[in-house]
Amino acid sequence: MKKVGIVMGSDSDLPILRKTMDTLKSLDIPFECHIYSAHRTPEEARDFAVNARANGFGCIIAAAGMAAHLAGAIAANTTLPVIGIPCKGGMMDGLDALLATVQMPSGIPVATVAVGGGVNAALLAAQIIAVGDAELAAKLDNKRKSDAETVLKKDAALQAELNG
Amino acid sequence: MKKVGIVMGSDSDLPILRKTMDTLKSLDIPFECHIYSAHRTPEEARDFAVNARANGFGCIIAAAGMAAHLAGAIAANTTLPVIGIPCKGGMMDGLDALLATVQMPSGIPVATVAVGGGVNAALLAAQIIAVGDAELAAKLDNKRKSDAETVLKKDAALQAELNG
Amino acid sequence: MKKVGIVMGSDSDLPILRKTMDTLKSLDIPFECHIYSAHRTPEEARDFAVNARANGFGCIIAAAGMAAHLAGAIAANTTLPVIGIPCKGGMMDGLDALLATVQMPSGIPVATVAVGGGVNAALLAAQIIAVGDAELAAKLDNKRKSDAETVLKKDAALQAELNG
Amino acid sequence: MKKVGIVMGSDSDLPILRKTMDTLKSLDIPFECHIYSAHRTPEEARDFAVNARANGFGCIIAAAGMAAHLAGAIAANTTLPVIGIPCKGGMMDGLDALLATVQMPSGIPVATVAVGGGVNAALLAAQIIAVGDAELAAKLDNKRKSDAETVLKKDAALQAELNG
Amino acid sequence: MKKVGIVMGSDSDLPILRKTMDTLKSLDIPFECHIYSAHRTPEEARDFAVNARANGFGCIIAAAGMAAHLAGAIAANTTLPVIGIPCKGGMMDGLDALLATVQMPSGIPVATVAVGGGVNAALLAAQIIAVGDAELAAKLDNKRKSDAETVLKKDAALQAELNG
Amino acid sequence: MKKVGIVMGSDSDLPILRKTMDTLKSLDIPFECHIYSAHRTPEEARDFAVNARANGFGCIIAAAGMAAHLAGAIAANTTLPVIGIPCKGGMMDGLDALLATVQMPSGIPVATVAVGGGVNAALLAAQIIAVGDAELAAKLDNKRKSDAETVLKKDAALQAELNG
Amino acid sequence: MKKVGIVMGSDSDLPILRKTMDTLKSLDIPFECHIYSAHRTPEEARDFAVNARANGFGCIIAAAGMAAHLAGAIAANTTLPVIGIPCKGGMMDGLDALLATVQMPSGIPVATVAVGGGVNAALLAAQIIAVGDAELAAKLDNKRKSDAETVLKKDAALQAELNG
Amino acid sequence: MKKVGIVMGSDSDLPILRKTMDTLKSLDIPFECHIYSAHRTPEEARDFAVNARANGFGCIIAAAGMAAHLAGAIAANTTLPVIGIPCKGGMMDGLDALLATVQMPSGIPVATVAVGGGVNAALLAAQIIAVGDAELAAKLDNKRKSDAETVLKKDAALQAELNG
Repeated sequence: MKKVGIVMGSDSDLPILRKTMDTLKSLDIPFECHIYSAHRTPEEARDFAVNARANGFGCIIAAAGMAAHLAGAIAANTTLPVIGIPCKGGMMDGLDALLATVQMPSGIPVATVAVGGGVNAALLAAQIIAVGDAELAAKLDNKRKSDAETVLKKDAALQAELNG
Repeated sequence: MKKVGIVMGSDSDLPILRKTMDTLKSLDIPFECHIYSAHRTPEEARDFAVNARANGFGCIIAAAGMAAHLAGAIAANTTLPVIGIPCKGGMMDGLDALLATVQMPSGIPVATVAVGGGVNAALLAAQIIAVGDAELAAKLDNKRKSDAETVLKKDAALQAELNG
Repeated sequence: MKKVGIVMGSDSDLPILRKTMDTLKSLDIPFECHIYSAHRTPEEARDFAVNARANGFGCIIAAAGMAAHLAGAIAANTTLPVIGIPCKGGMMDGLDALLATVQMPSGIPVATVAVGGGVNAALLAAQIIAVGDAELAAKLDNKRKSDAETVLKKDAALQAELNG
Repeated sequence: MKKVGIVMGSDSDLPILRKTMDTLKSLDIPFECHIYSAHRTPEEARDFAVNARANGFGCIIAAAGMAAHLAGAIAANTTLPVIGIPCKGGMMDGLDALLATVQMPSGIPVATVAVGGGVNAALLAAQIIAVGDAELAAKLDNKRKSDAETVLKKDAALQAELNG
Repeated sequence: MKKVGIVMGSDSDLPILRKTMDTLKSLDIPFECHIYSAHRTPEEARDFAVNARANGFGCIIAAAGMAAHLAGAIAANTTLPVIGIPCKGGMMDGLDALLATVQMPSGIPVATVAVGGGVNAALLAAQIIAVGDAELAAKLDNKRKSDAETVLKKDAALQAELNG
Repeated sequence: MKKVGIVMGSDSDLPILRKTMDTLKSLDIPFECHIYSAHRTPEEARDFAVNARANGFGCIIAAAGMAAHLAGAIAANTTLPVIGIPCKGGMMDGLDALLATVQMPSGIPVATVAVGGGVNAALLAAQIIAVGDAELAAKLDNKRKSDAETVLKKDAALQAELNG
Repeated sequence: MKKVGIVMGSDSDLPILRKTMDTLKSLDIPFECHIYSAHRTPEEARDFAVNARANGFGCIIAAAGMAAHLAGAIAANTTLPVIGIPCKGGMMDGLDALLATVQMPSGIPVATVAVGGGVNAALLAAQIIAVGDAELAAKLDNKRKSDAETVLKKDAALQAELNG
Repeated sequence: MKKVGIVMGSDSDLPILRKTMDTLKSLDIPFECHIYSAHRTPEEARDFAVNARANGFGCIIAAAGMAAHLAGAIAANTTLPVIGIPCKGGMMDGLDALLATVQMPSGIPVATVAVGGGVNAALLAAQIIAVGDAELAAKLDNKRKSDAETVLKKDAALQAELNG
């Protein structure tokens, strides 16, 4: 199976990416995770992106805050799908990071998820790999059913409380 | 090759999606394109999503403006990767549509591109399909090189003007 | 008397809706309250809306945060009045949820109240039912008088303090 | 049938309210429409609200821009449902008017629709009156079906173009 | 000397207005302070404004949050200068209240100070009364000098620390 | 009668201030109007403010856009009431200028009106001078009545159209 | 004299940078200007920055819009002062580009000027070079005096009109 | 070596500027730091700026919040490079201060860093002085290398944890 690459600009974003790693593990998807800053270690970030397809990665998740350039810097150096996670830390609850991540110029897309969306980034990566992997697709369908059942159990508990 | 599904909530978004279709055509990627509204034709939108994987789609692009629910409504009914294009039409240059598209709850990701990002949505779809298609990946790499050359030609013209 | 339907996308919104239920109880208005997610349990949310008028509901209150699609998803499946409560949880103090709730396309209105406006959603529901119920209208008028007296008592206490 | 009251703060909002009136006419709902400013003619605005229920109104639609106080000023003087239409004219595409309309204090709800939402305000008023009027409810259901068919015809035309 | 009228929409704004009252006291300016809500006690708010000039007031300070209508409602009923203090409590750190206070229609100005600007509202009221009162103007000049000396003493302390 | 001082940071703001001057003229209030920039001619702006009270001014109106420092720079050098008019020209429809004008530190108030509020700035200045001038106060009351009549005439015309 | 480097991400930013070049020319400051995209030609942008100090540049001006990464990408590869010009083209009048330019992580500053601030970027570059160049500093002082005289001439013309 | 001038509008900004001073000390750059308010002590702020070049300063760092005029007021009185640090304290996480600092009129640039960017302001000042000081430039290059190593050590620790 293709691996998922994970890159963060600063270890302050690690709590969000631990959720990403936990989600990938729960789906048995292999991954690598690195701390490479677009601004402090631009060469390492670039080299990781340039070699990612050859190194067996199927997509790359990049998390950064403020002037969140990391996902774009990765995307500029690969044609693998790049998933951007904007992180809080700057202004307006992360809106700055969201805009800096999603507003890419034509030609270089970044698949952006919600601010702090570590779990959804992992699921999106899984969905991308599952395009060519029916077994993984089935796992994702099962997770959806399980998520729905969790909601319905909470509703049942509420009915019991209100009508009990 | 997997097809790309394209759905828009209103034909007012068609100009953006014509760019999406043109980009997919230039890469020889098959697609289908429909006008289904999350609010006015919820059943048709839902049915398209529920059956998309079985119908040979590899990912779905959904474009909508204002309270841009369409991408989320599609994503709620499939585990295929769903790419959301927020469209202008509401408030603040499409920021409303961007937030309504990207801020999905945990479990249901939408891969969001920039407001009006019709070309990048197509390229992201192509990148997703290219994860399992080396020939398409090569086409994408060639497009990148060509884009770079376009920039460098413009720089050369500027140098000629300034130094000429 | 027509019942008020209450739906929330996640039990994290329950504290706001407990105020809604308390207000309805204080006015002797019957209600049902469910946890149905527009994204995780789209079928249950849809079925509730489709059958609401036949099941004796006079209006539906829907609460959701972030990409707050629930009120719109309910409104897409009924012509009963739908009241949307945007909830905090995403960006900018709930402005994201407000815009995602209020900016509905032409044809599918959602009667939106303030972010976290659980009490006002209940009062609006009561006002709607009171259009055809003079006794309930009288109760609402009395509540207004009582609210005014509360303000004037506070003013009297302030005068006593300042002039005492 | 109960009448719908329509009030605007300035005749600059009349184009939006003509859509409101046209929609009400198409549903055979009686209405009255006035220009009363919360700031320039506060007495007239107040008197209209205080007497609205006795004068046979079932709900009131109020449209205003900038520091959009009109809907709130009406709502402060009646317990009829009040629908607020924020209008552009101030800052940020009407976001100022939206917040000034929707952020009412607890006790005095305003059912807010989208900025410039003249049609949806009329439909919401119709939905409110239809709570006690099965014939009007049926008309609203028919309009929904008609709206859906319009979308599907556009989709059919697009299919013809793409596949033709 | 003319009195300053102070009105707040809710006693939750009292902490801000205690600063206003303390500042007026320190300048020996007489004042009255009331809790009158534009929405819950519209008649009392209106009557206070209508009679303010005849009752010896020289200007009125009005504080309110969220859909901050109070200053505008006062201004609609008097041609005395009305000073608006927007208060936090709604969205975006009080930006909603600021816009609802300052964006008055042509003809009905509100002299708006910063969000939570209780001291500056009092000083502005004092400056207005001092237009016809040289003794009060001298007091205001002295306060300015004293404020400047406070800054310069802090600078001297910093120099002592840095160079000591 | 005290004069009103008017200062603008750039002649691009002159159209707004012509409305200010016209309004003052219609009320027979004397004024002076200057182009002094807080940044390009700081000495002239400062000197005008320092000498304004001695030169017979009763209040000063200052208009500026972008990093709108002018009103604050004037207010820092006088204890006369200073009215700030934020002007468009920077970002977000003048929100930048509004915040730069209204958010003054404690001790130095600026009475801020709406973005582009040239008429209301003049009326506020008139209201300030009218605190000690019963004749001017009567003129302002008459203008209010005239404004109200204008609204009611428009309403009458609308009634004629709708019912004619 | 050190040269000023100018880089833009797209030739759509050229009109802004022509003002930059004109301003530098008027001060006899040598410069080079290139079109290098952070995303489409990352290697060229990087190489320019890495070699800038050795190539005789004293500072670099970088202009970009939307997810405006260019200034940051340049700054990551040099310790020369980097001046960022955010350009319109994305959302909210360039606020997105402003935040993406200014919110740099600790260690990698970008000296940001106003959106579209092509003239001020040139003047800031000149001021930086003038730190070690008294002749250039004198030119800058003279330009200031000339700018002030322009304002005062406009004021004189206005006085002539008003008093004439 | 030229000195760096540091000015803050209020001692509430001192914690941010202590980081500025610590950074300058670590690079052996001489500095002076003062508390001068643009509004409360305008003369002192002006005098500092007017005399700064003659007094041996190479650039000036100015920090202020809310209607953050200080950097602009300094810049209006010198042609030395002025670095502005916007500080929180007003609305929207300091966005108000950022806009009031960066949006300077043409002719008077302020080199703006991120909100609260005390370290980067110092580094930018160092980079400006290093334009004519190869030894300082080398120190800055070494700091960059050291910052990069810190990131890579964190990455190594993460690899050890994940693979250990």
